[in-house]
Amino acid sequence: MNIGIVGLGLIGGSIGLKLQSLNHIVYGVTNNNFNESKSKERKLATLVSQNYKVLQECEIVILALPIKDLLNPENDLIKAIPANTIVTDVGSVKVPIVKTWEKIHPLFIGSHPMAGNEKKGVSSGDIKLFDNARWIITPTKKTHTKSLNILSQLFQSMNCDVLLEPPFIHDQAVSLISHLPIYLASCLLETVNDEQDEKLLNLSRKIASTGFSDTSRVGGGNPILGIDLAKNNTENIRNSLKKFRENICKIERILEDSDWEALHEKLENAARCREFFCD
Amino acid sequence: MNIGIVGLGLIGGSIGLKLQSLNHIVYGVTNNNFNESKSKERKLATLVSQNYKVLQECEIVILALPIKDLLNPENDLIKAIPANTIVTDVGSVKVPIVKTWEKIHPLFIGSHPMAGNEKKGVSSGDIKLFDNARWIITPTKKTHTKSLNILSQLFQSMNCDVLLEPPFIHDQAVSLISHLPIYLASCLLETVNDEQDEKLLNLSRKIASTGFSDTSRVGGGNPILGIDLAKNNTENIRNSLKKFRENICKIERILEDSDWEALHEKLENAARCREFFCD
Repeated sequence: MNIGIVGLGLIGGSIGLKLQSLNHIVYGVTNNNFNESKSKERKLATLVSQNYKVLQECEIVILALPIKDLLNPENDLIKAIPANTIVTDVGSVKVPIVKTWEKIHPLFIGSHPMAGNEKKGVSSGDIKLFDNARWIITPTKKTHTKSLNILSQLFQSMNCDVLLEPPFIHDQAVSLISHLPIYLASCLLETVNDEQDEKLLNLSRKIASTGFSDTSRVGGGNPILGIDLAKNNTENIRNSLKKFRENICKIERILEDSDWEALHEKLENAARCREFFCD
Repeated sequence: MNIGIVGLGLIGGSIGLKLQSLNHIVYGVTNNNFNESKSKERKLATLVSQNYKVLQECEIVILALPIKDLLNPENDLIKAIPANTIVTDVGSVKVPIVKTWEKIHPLFIGSHPMAGNEKKGVSSGDIKLFDNARWIITPTKKTHTKSLNILSQLFQSMNCDVLLEPPFIHDQAVSLISHLPIYLASCLLETVNDEQDEKLLNLSRKIASTGFSDTSRVGGGNPILGIDLAKNNTENIRNSLKKFRENICKIERILEDSDWEALHEKLENAARCREFFCD
């Protein structure tokens, strides 16, 4: 197929590499000269351009843009996509994006591949990023069934496990397992880095090891993403942060009360339930 | 050298494998038949026994026991260690252990290798666990200089970067970069797992990906460790949890106020400071 990708950062670039390996023709659109030349050098798409008009060749267009650009799409982008082209996005929130794009394009279907790392930009695309990842598609009552099937098959062919869920359930679930970790990891980094005792701060920096590195990893990501999520999934994230903070308060009370039995139960439950989330 | 290791779990077993590869004779002590036979099968020590008396051959003894056993050591263990043997431990808190063991043994020096994973027991030892890890030694005014030098050289020969710090600074630093992550990771797991909407819980379990897995990893560890740390580094951990909770509250207020500029600054600072901790 001819497939367009708008934005060749971590997600778009990884999709471009993967789709080319499956013999699709990929039309990549970037937004400046540096990104264009770097994308060409890294062969992130079969053809790389700064002009949305290349999308006119495409049966499927994947919008791999920051959330704020998905919510305020350029007119030239909208105009360049033929009416019979299937359009999806890969944004990390779905309710506002689906709402926006279903008004713009008849064959729009929201989606979200559950993979990523702390890298960003045209240098970060990785052909293996989606191997065995879950890719959620969020159809609504308006969704065109045939287009949904084509998109599902495409993602499956990319070695992804496709799930279909309504946009609002997607947004609740990611607020818990994807967005909450970003804010708590950034708070962890801040807590240690704010240490005023310089000797202690230096030692902490030196001895931070794999445990700290893993727990804080998603706090080292692109701040723009963290803001876009907070802006567009606000209530779910506030809800998740509140529940999390209440659990922290419980641990604080347990330590205050030296209630080691309660702590044992809490830590044992946490360790036991982890296998349901991380296999 | 002849080196004794008491306890052949993740840390003790890994040390045993590494020391044998450096041509030391390792005397491993375990506490039951299963651990003894599994340790022999995995060759965690040159000689494995359930009898502390094998330690009488050793120039150095490494106590790789749970914190509570270090704080209440068996009489047979104490009696088995010759007075001119250098003794160290690998416990994750240092003040109470150093206080206890400096009274017991003239050549005791506390230490703590900064490496680990979520595994435990005699099946988990890994020869590479300490490669390029930091190993903190916590000497005091009572420490015997020559013994300290021998111990430092041994750990360096194991490919570790040795740091010398007073026990109380060690305990403050690990409360921030090692203990705090355990409790917040367990709270993260609990927050998601407590979700009452079954459909949402199931989706969250299915789509949890590398971000959730990494952020929650240290919450999946041995609950006994989490309790021993809380019991023996209580004030430092309470202090760290309090600072962390205050940072969570700040993020909650930022979302309540839609103060995206403040959020940008916070996330950018966190991402920037991460490189000082994780290289």
